[in-house]
Amino acid sequence: MIYFDNSATTEPNSDVLETFLEVSRRYYGNASSAHKLGLEAEHLLRKSYQHISQLLAVKPTEIIFTSGGTEGNNLAIKGIALAYQNRGKHLMTTTIEHPSVINTFQALEELGFEVTYLPVDQSGVVSIDAVKQALREDTILVSVMHVNNELGTIQPIEAIGQLLKNRKYTFFHVDHVQGFGKIGLDLKQSAIDLATISGHKIHGLKGTGLVYQREGVRLFPLLHGGGQQDNRHSGTENLAGIVSLSKAIRLILEQNSARSKHLQLLNRRMRDELTQIDEVIINTPENQAPHIINFSIPGLKPEIVLHALEERNIYVSTQSACSSKKASESSVLRAIHLPPNQRNSAIRISFSYHNTIDEIDVFIRELQRIIKELKQDMR
Amino acid sequence: MIYFDNSATTEPNSDVLETFLEVSRRYYGNASSAHKLGLEAEHLLRKSYQHISQLLAVKPTEIIFTSGGTEGNNLAIKGIALAYQNRGKHLMTTTIEHPSVINTFQALEELGFEVTYLPVDQSGVVSIDAVKQALREDTILVSVMHVNNELGTIQPIEAIGQLLKNRKYTFFHVDHVQGFGKIGLDLKQSAIDLATISGHKIHGLKGTGLVYQREGVRLFPLLHGGGQQDNRHSGTENLAGIVSLSKAIRLILEQNSARSKHLQLLNRRMRDELTQIDEVIINTPENQAPHIINFSIPGLKPEIVLHALEERNIYVSTQSACSSKKASESSVLRAIHLPPNQRNSAIRISFSYHNTIDEIDVFIRELQRIIKELKQDMR
Ligand SMILES: Cc1ncc(COP(=O)(O)O)c(C=O)c1O
Ligand SMILES: Cc1ncc(COP(=O)(O)O)c(C=O)c1O
Repeated sequence: MIYFDNSATTEPNSDVLETFLEVSRRYYGNASSAHKLGLEAEHLLRKSYQHISQLLAVKPTEIIFTSGGTEGNNLAIKGIALAYQNRGKHLMTTTIEHPSVINTFQALEELGFEVTYLPVDQSGVVSIDAVKQALREDTILVSVMHVNNELGTIQPIEAIGQLLKNRKYTFFHVDHVQGFGKIGLDLKQSAIDLATISGHKIHGLKGTGLVYQREGVRLFPLLHGGGQQDNRHSGTENLAGIVSLSKAIRLILEQNSARSKHLQLLNRRMRDELTQIDEVIINTPENQAPHIINFSIPGLKPEIVLHALEERNIYVSTQSACSSKKASESSVLRAIHLPPNQRNSAIRISFSYHNTIDEIDVFIRELQRIIKELKQDMR
Repeated sequence: MIYFDNSATTEPNSDVLETFLEVSRRYYGNASSAHKLGLEAEHLLRKSYQHISQLLAVKPTEIIFTSGGTEGNNLAIKGIALAYQNRGKHLMTTTIEHPSVINTFQALEELGFEVTYLPVDQSGVVSIDAVKQALREDTILVSVMHVNNELGTIQPIEAIGQLLKNRKYTFFHVDHVQGFGKIGLDLKQSAIDLATISGHKIHGLKGTGLVYQREGVRLFPLLHGGGQQDNRHSGTENLAGIVSLSKAIRLILEQNSARSKHLQLLNRRMRDELTQIDEVIINTPENQAPHIINFSIPGLKPEIVLHALEERNIYVSTQSACSSKKASESSVLRAIHLPPNQRNSAIRISFSYHNTIDEIDVFIRELQRIIKELKQDMR
């Protein structure tokens, strides 16, 4: 099997799963219980906060464990909006965010907030000037993703962070789900107030994730209750999930530092090979995130190509997973003004550190065969 | 080890864990992906909806998978409040709800809703009359728990449901976290609109749970995003968690129908034995939920008793787990007007189907010894 759909989800690392199992079996006590089983669970929980905060170079109190990227984005965005609405009701994001960001902003519009959706240029990047110009006295939140899930474009996070740094009541949220573990991002240096990470995109488990919340930033909780996680996210902690996440984070950061060139090699080879195929147009600009390449084969339906590849045990994506069952047109590709025949025929490849050059060569060979066959069928 | 703290959390069933592992390994595809790995995941997801809906005698579309009881309660309560606020802004609950209900209502008060907190009588039960009298034209939600987590008292859910049945825009939510699998509750017969269930209270995994949402009831989602779960709960589904939950539900319902007398036997024995101990006062009235018994030993600090039991490898709770680290007084015990010396010395025992009569006998013997020792120390 050649799995090139790692931005949809990744195969859980076996050590991560083992950790989940071990913790579920041995530390099932409720971390809030006063007896030994509870204290052992709480101790492990505390260790996870510490471990992850060291890995991310933040404080343990700056981490909130969540059930995934969607919850993280909702918590950060709704959390700021509801906590600071007396300071202002203007929010800002871009047109190429993930649905868990875009649709959260739309929900806030229903609740009386005003949202500016910043456009991006043809290479899918938002400009600092656009952010600057849209800023208002009453802007309480700017949310910009780090790496786009469909295109792999990288946003100028550090520059936006510097721009917002001195505005005390304009908070900066970064959806770091696709960037984390692939593209370095210094949360402090970029003056980020809130960042979202998801476990299942980094060979961790579904149902795990976290939000980085800078000290001093308040959030109106999504989940009220027993006061767990310092009142910021109530509910009995999924301790096994949390410990497994800390392992997944350690492992992906190890890969990121030891083998970051590997993804670039894969990217280079894939781009070079795709460029050789006449029918292919690469949609992702050069020098973006190495693990995501979006390309089109105008005239061929992407679902047909996807299924032809699948028959050869090769897995790719036609759009971001979340929207793949719906309308076949991507709003992200529309936002960068791709012509319709490119928009309607786009395919995404997304790598993990486990992929190999050999897999790319097999993929290219099969893709060429498929294109040839499909074009013959069309005659 | 004698574990009598099953209302705080339960030991995961090994089959449930095995299922989680198996699904994580073999079906890690994103259920939204268009290729085979996605379709296989989606198929399994659909089967889980079907399986659980059969077990609960509801429709598959009436189930929303969540990350646990706290999320379920927040989703149901905030979801109704925000979806129907144009119909009215009055909400109703009781004074003995779990913090994930009480604190959610308090958060809604901050957002401009008005909440009536209904008192309970000395046995911890809310009266139908109190509900009836507090109902207003603009009451959009009544939330009453089935079984109280600290006392084990059972609320008159069916009667309240019948009372509200014909009020089209007054929705009825039941926190079924402690009752599910122990005390039967016919969701349809009780005219319940929303009910919350949590996985880790029924030998399932932390991070799993569900909300029953009657067909026709709308909820403002807690989580906006990719539109998963029919737009009611976005985010990549924790498929392994969901399938494991369906197993946990099947297993607990099997126990419930085959061995419901077992919990009653345990309860009877425990009550009879506790009654023999002069220093003990049982706080839970007769004929309540069989798996929870709250009692006090006036004059002895409950933490001391808890730790003395713990040294003998017996685990009980001093309060509901969620609040055990905080103020040592229980608001639930205050709500039923227990005298201070009972309130301050309360201990909760909570059974699972795995507990045995032998364990009770050991517990009673050790408790008697502890009381004797502690009283000697106090001289
Ligand atoms: C950029 C981005 N943000 C957020 C999410 C949502 O994360 P999750 O699937 O963990 O809910 C995704 C995943 O599809 C994503 O690609
Ligand atoms: C009655 C009741 N409701 C809700 C909850 C919260 O459930 P969870 O721990 O899954 O968040 C609990 C658990 O403590 C409970 O006892």
